Amino acid sequence: MAQRTGRRPGNRDTSGEILAAARTIFSERGYDSASIRQIAAMAGVDAALVHHYFGTKEQLFRDVVDIPVEPAALIADIFGAGVEAVPERIVQSFLGICEGPATGPALFGLLRGAVSHQWQGLLLREYFTTQIIRRVLSRLDTVVDPAEIPLRASLVSSQLIGLTLARYIFHYEPLASVRSELVVKLVAPNIQRYILGELDLTEEDARQLVTVLTGLEDAGK
Amino acid sequence: MAQRTGRRPGNRDTSGEILAAARTIFSERGYDSASIRQIAAMAGVDAALVHHYFGTKEQLFRDVVDIPVEPAALIADIFGAGVEAVPERIVQSFLGICEGPATGPALFGLLRGAVSHQWQGLLLREYFTTQIIRRVLSRLDTVVDPAEIPLRASLVSSQLIGLTLARYIFHYEPLASVRSELVVKLVAPNIQRYILGELDLTEEDARQLVTVLTGLEDAGK
Repeated sequence: MAQRTGRRPGNRDTSGEILAAARTIFSERGYDSASIRQIAAMAGVDAALVHHYFGTKEQLFRDVVDIPVEPAALIADIFGAGVEAVPERIVQSFLGICEGPATGPALFGLLRGAVSHQWQGLLLREYFTTQIIRRVLSRLDTVVDPAEIPLRASLVSSQLIGLTLARYIFHYEPLASVRSELVVKLVAPNIQRYILGELDLTEEDARQLVTVLTGLEDAGK
Repeated sequence: MAQRTGRRPGNRDTSGEILAAARTIFSERGYDSASIRQIAAMAGVDAALVHHYFGTKEQLFRDVVDIPVEPAALIADIFGAGVEAVPERIVQSFLGICEGPATGPALFGLLRGAVSHQWQGLLLREYFTTQIIRRVLSRLDTVVDPAEIPLRASLVSSQLIGLTLARYIFHYEPLASVRSELVVKLVAPNIQRYILGELDLTEEDARQLVTVLTGLEDAGK
């Protein structure tokens, strides 16, 4: 047994305490600014123990969010039919998550929680932004202006979240009952515009975007 | 005082009971199928009393939903700059509701409730579909195939709900912080496609749409 050094040994619910600390740190600081060191300090354990239980920061984050989705596999699938098909594949993959017997309920649970609890909303945002949409967009950086990626990512998210609510949670008809192939055909062109379309930003728009994003970075986000 | 006839006199919380009954009937049957007669029967009062307290079915419905928005004024505003400007005006008006000091909190409250409580989701859907989006689309019936209106309305709703969540509830950046004029410019073309764009429905798609919508009607919706 480890000696008492002010740090807790592994025989209490250490992994639960690490997860609780990670939840707080990730939702308060966002994925990018969070560190294993901060999480370990909050849980009162050594950083090595966090790695031992949960692996990398990314793996820990996925355990906190707890949607059984493997981002790497998802992104491979989204790019599996070339850049042209990316918008269609995004909608397809997203509907696949919503309609999966394990992933659907997990996502809907998180989404419901996100609406009532600020921290769950922040986790959901961080998950989609950092793990999925930003990665997809950064693979398109030869065709998309990198300065526009965060804006495009948030627009894509707005449509996908709204689609999830309208089709699966509020059951807006006929969108809720038509087959998913039709939903893909209907929604993909709008996702395409958000990802690849000309946004016609004026110089003033571009300046405002920089101000907003710089402000966020300065605030430690 | 009225004699006891099995109907309650007006001196208890009759208006509260009528509202509760209306909430149940509207969310179970939808706006179109609900009637003042059914609501009065459930509240154990005379239909005339419902009209006395709440006016028409539409006025009662607006009291149940309790968003301080006047659909007629909203729709006049949406069409105020001609058909061309309708998509832009829809986004503008919607952001106006979200950013209004009374209307924003009311809408967000309803939306939060809608995610956790089925009946609130149904009311929200009925409100937007019947009171606003369907009315807008039916004024466009010379340019839009009437058979496609319910589908287009549910697609528009999906984007507007997602925009509300992403910008005002989950605070997805930079979408949450850019000024509303930019949001209108970014989102309006996507709303335009959902309202006026070619949806390229195949014959099979069109058949499925009819089946879904007919099924809903048969189910008393």
